[in-house]
Amino acid sequence: MNDIPEESLDPSDWSNAQSIAHKMVDDAIEHLSSVRDRTVWQDLPDGIRTHFKAAAPNDPMPLEDVYDELKRTLIPHPMGNIHPRFWGWYMGAGNFTGALGDFLAAVDGSNLGGGATSAAQIDMQVVNWFKAMMGFPDTASGTLTSGGSMANMVALTVARNTHAGVDVRAHGVAAMPQPLRFYASDQAHSCHPKSLEALGLGNTSLTLIPTDENYRMDIAALRTAIASDIAAGIKPACVIGTAGTTNTGAIDDLVTISAICNEHDMWFHVDGCIGALIRIAPDHRHMVAGIDTADSVALDPHKWLHTPFEAGCVIVRDAERHHGAFEMHGDYLQMQERGLLAGPFLADYGFELSRGFKALKIWMSIKEHGLEKFGRLIDQNIAQGQYLTARIAENPVLELIAPTEINIVCFRHRIENATESQIKDFNTELMLQIQESGIAVISDTTLRDQHCLRVAVNNHRTRTEDLDILLDAVINTGAEILAER
Amino acid sequence: MNDIPEESLDPSDWSNAQSIAHKMVDDAIEHLSSVRDRTVWQDLPDGIRTHFKAAAPNDPMPLEDVYDELKRTLIPHPMGNIHPRFWGWYMGAGNFTGALGDFLAAVDGSNLGGGATSAAQIDMQVVNWFKAMMGFPDTASGTLTSGGSMANMVALTVARNTHAGVDVRAHGVAAMPQPLRFYASDQAHSCHPKSLEALGLGNTSLTLIPTDENYRMDIAALRTAIASDIAAGIKPACVIGTAGTTNTGAIDDLVTISAICNEHDMWFHVDGCIGALIRIAPDHRHMVAGIDTADSVALDPHKWLHTPFEAGCVIVRDAERHHGAFEMHGDYLQMQERGLLAGPFLADYGFELSRGFKALKIWMSIKEHGLEKFGRLIDQNIAQGQYLTARIAENPVLELIAPTEINIVCFRHRIENATESQIKDFNTELMLQIQESGIAVISDTTLRDQHCLRVAVNNHRTRTEDLDILLDAVINTGAEILAER
Ligand SMILES: Cc1ncc(COP(=O)(O)O)c(C=O)c1O
Ligand SMILES: Cc1ncc(COP(=O)(O)O)c(C=O)c1O
Repeated sequence: MNDIPEESLDPSDWSNAQSIAHKMVDDAIEHLSSVRDRTVWQDLPDGIRTHFKAAAPNDPMPLEDVYDELKRTLIPHPMGNIHPRFWGWYMGAGNFTGALGDFLAAVDGSNLGGGATSAAQIDMQVVNWFKAMMGFPDTASGTLTSGGSMANMVALTVARNTHAGVDVRAHGVAAMPQPLRFYASDQAHSCHPKSLEALGLGNTSLTLIPTDENYRMDIAALRTAIASDIAAGIKPACVIGTAGTTNTGAIDDLVTISAICNEHDMWFHVDGCIGALIRIAPDHRHMVAGIDTADSVALDPHKWLHTPFEAGCVIVRDAERHHGAFEMHGDYLQMQERGLLAGPFLADYGFELSRGFKALKIWMSIKEHGLEKFGRLIDQNIAQGQYLTARIAENPVLELIAPTEINIVCFRHRIENATESQIKDFNTELMLQIQESGIAVISDTTLRDQHCLRVAVNNHRTRTEDLDILLDAVINTGAEILAER
Repeated sequence: MNDIPEESLDPSDWSNAQSIAHKMVDDAIEHLSSVRDRTVWQDLPDGIRTHFKAAAPNDPMPLEDVYDELKRTLIPHPMGNIHPRFWGWYMGAGNFTGALGDFLAAVDGSNLGGGATSAAQIDMQVVNWFKAMMGFPDTASGTLTSGGSMANMVALTVARNTHAGVDVRAHGVAAMPQPLRFYASDQAHSCHPKSLEALGLGNTSLTLIPTDENYRMDIAALRTAIASDIAAGIKPACVIGTAGTTNTGAIDDLVTISAICNEHDMWFHVDGCIGALIRIAPDHRHMVAGIDTADSVALDPHKWLHTPFEAGCVIVRDAERHHGAFEMHGDYLQMQERGLLAGPFLADYGFELSRGFKALKIWMSIKEHGLEKFGRLIDQNIAQGQYLTARIAENPVLELIAPTEINIVCFRHRIENATESQIKDFNTELMLQIQESGIAVISDTTLRDQHCLRVAVNNHRTRTEDLDILLDAVINTGAEILAER
């Protein structure tokens, strides 16, 4: 039929592809097993930025040359979250088995939108595991998402639809008989206002409740806000409790929030992207008591399970409402009792239709290590956070800025007779110099107008000595900056 | 500090992990290079479903045992879209280099939310490549998404915010001075109503415009709908043109729709999840003329570029509006001029904060094969679709149900003196038996009340002979079912 022979993307020589793949495995092992000997992060040379400005090639290039280019340009310049002294923002450190999981998932190739495949069974099994970890009943539903932001957005969509008082899928938010109000602490993550913007409710539909001295939601203030909204004709729809705030790791009083939600027939959502998994950590699980009473929980395997990006999860107590918020099938996608499409259709639980096989990397790591070890690793990071806190408390040059609830430590370097803005400039410079030195990566935040440094010990490779190295760097760099001034 | 020694997720014996990884590579090569010798898909044995119902293990298990379990339970039961005779729904067939890309991305570990990393440079480069492929200017923006559904949803969010007539991020959809209206053909993908539901506009904000005999949007009907909405005080906000409908591959008249959008100051979005990439196919690029004039285009590398799941992309002409729809930073994530967070923050262009390194698998395949080959592969699939169409047309037992625009063929098996519902039952049974036989996977749809079989030749491994095998199976299976009745 064609004069040109048919071609494909398969390698013309599989054994060549095989030996390149072996080389990649060997290099990856070398890269990960020696990560401690390298800097955490180094600024990109200008040449790299220029290099990656090139147009797409029209012509082919042997795979080994593609890989050689990556060895020169990509592999030396990672973010550094795989390094034992990366504690910036809040990420996982990845793991080798997880990387193999992503490889096997891509080879398997299945679309996790649904279908009678083993991949779909593993996806459902992993969701069931998370339900069990959170103390949710078997009848609950859930879905894996790209991360915590989407997990929260899925949950808030179900909450919105449940309390809209109208068929909001058909008629939209403008048709609701009353405006809806959501509540979260003033420490809640930015993905909540961002989600409510997306959902057409506007970020003003989120009331940020003040927090107490431990950065936990002030329950009396929550009650007052709900009462005054009811009086004003606004419908209280949902309280978002945070189990582990991004700033300080504070955990809201989930038991009491749950009772308040019951009282007012409100949706109780828990943003557990940081802390939900503390429920599997033997020494600290009491800290998230009440999470099992939520209507929905967002959690983030790519944080404290160290699943390589991406992997988030949301679980929902009322499977029917969850399904009712997302089910949709075109004519080209009608369900069948038999054949490839038989079985639950997984895309009916979120925004995505085609879905990747994120479950596999989670499944493999949990199988390999067992849940108990993940629990111990969470306890280990919390103990490391407490260790760092104690060392900061005893150092007169440093000052703790918030109580350390779990594994997030907020502190700063003191400077005498300085304004807040001078202190901020100084500590920002300190943070940047430490990042640039490659010794560690830490980040910063602002708590009640006080700027501070922030160390989130969410890293399975961190040893306690690494925190000593950080403190030495902070003290020495601080002294150097002061001396230069 | 601890009595228990600190532990990590790293293997205690890297060389053992290395040899398992080599084994996985060898098995993957064997699996992919012999895929043609196997069935496309086989129903899951009950034992498999039961197997995957087990609770999460508390205790560890050696990685080789985990992998042995996968060899028995996962690897024999994929969806089959890696197989040359998979033409169901609309998916890519994956590729080995892409799988290596997912592995390397997970080893690198970088969070693509942003940051001064090579990963971020590659992410931006790949988006730039897609902008160039679509004929968009350098000043346009874009972002990689999990797939086409999210790519479309990002674009519709920017369209909504642009035409809301109010600060919709703050005040929500209920504060808009006029209701908004979106328009798409009655062949548009279900992700559009689903997105508009999510965005709080309701699916009734989408008017489905009838299509002509080629399933292209009826332009006169579009004009009428816009005019009557304006008269009714509704604001026409956006036309969604489809470049390659899911049912039949029809391509709307993008040039004329663009002109209408200009005339009425409307957003012109193109859902090019199926067909946008035809712009790189030398023999057919004229078919998507006008796509370069859109305000936004959604496209789907995990379809016609065969990127392993997941990978979608949206590009937006007005980078400022795109950024303005999504930018949001908590106190814990303030930008800096130096250090790890310097540079564009990629999460400001979509719903997600943490993001995976999807760009790498796309980058590696494009580097390896060159764009021209991807263009030729698209032409090849379109030629195969035309071949199948011609063979069906000449066969008296079969009947084409729609014109074949590109690579999607809609047809059915005739049966004499039968009602529509009998024809549907018969063809459904035929489709399921072919799926169950393992010879091919095709799917079905309904076009203007006519049920039909649907073959989407989106597969780089398909050879023309494979379509002959399909036709033989259809004829033979059809005869068997008829004989049994
Ligand atoms: C409490 C909390 N919620 C949600 C998120 C968003 O998670 P992701 O980055 O996975 O989207 C984060 C991220 O750090 C978080 O700390
Ligand atoms: C035209 C069209 N748009 C959007 C989508 C959704 O894409 P995805 O499955 O990647 O979310 C599809 C999927 O087949 C499609 O055909």
